[in-house]
Amino acid sequence: MDKINLAEKLKLFEEYWNPKIIGECNDAHLKLAKLKGIFDWHHHENEDELFFVIKGHLTIHFRDRSLQLDPGELVVIPKGTEHCPEAPQEVHVLLIEPKGTLNTGNVVTDKTRPSLERI
Amino acid sequence: MDKINLAEKLKLFEEYWNPKIIGECNDAHLKLAKLKGIFDWHHHENEDELFFVIKGHLTIHFRDRSLQLDPGELVVIPKGTEHCPEAPQEVHVLLIEPKGTLNTGNVVTDKTRPSLERI
Repeated sequence: MDKINLAEKLKLFEEYWNPKIIGECNDAHLKLAKLKGIFDWHHHENEDELFFVIKGHLTIHFRDRSLQLDPGELVVIPKGTEHCPEAPQEVHVLLIEPKGTLNTGNVVTDKTRPSLERI
Repeated sequence: MDKINLAEKLKLFEEYWNPKIIGECNDAHLKLAKLKGIFDWHHHENEDELFFVIKGHLTIHFRDRSLQLDPGELVVIPKGTEHCPEAPQEVHVLLIEPKGTLNTGNVVTDKTRPSLERI
């Protein structure tokens, strides 16, 4: 067990839309991701997903509305809820979701990352 | 579902060592707490506990060492690990732990809070 400094971990990678596992807590993985551009519409059948914005401004589109999250803000997307994250400029997020959660949920696209690196 | 702004939630209470529930994600509660002074030694028999420091400098003592966490740093304390948080000056933390986790774990003290307010 050691402490995790989010800023230092974020220096260790550059790729967008490729979350890195930085730890675990009970049945969940803690992940960091850098986002830029628009992702793919998807939902997670059995997993709630937490997004916490560290840097930048993240828009999450839902079928009936959109939310904008600024640094220091978080949202929990309930299981089954279709969503599509969009980052017009670079965004850094902490994600917390059950181990095994696939980044593109119920769909497979060119952004699907079935195996995530630990940093 | 709505976004949660941590700074705004932190304006809603003042008491130390009395976590407030701000949301849930899968089987976990998301909590905010203000800490000042020293807590009580305890462990959580079945729950890993995540501390993320938002403001201030938190020391967490373990039986064989201590960790200092600064803003932007987190630690996951594995189940069964004795610990004692100390905040010489005011500290604000985000806690993530399974629903039902008691703040003083395996002991009951004057700091035990069996029922937490939602804000």
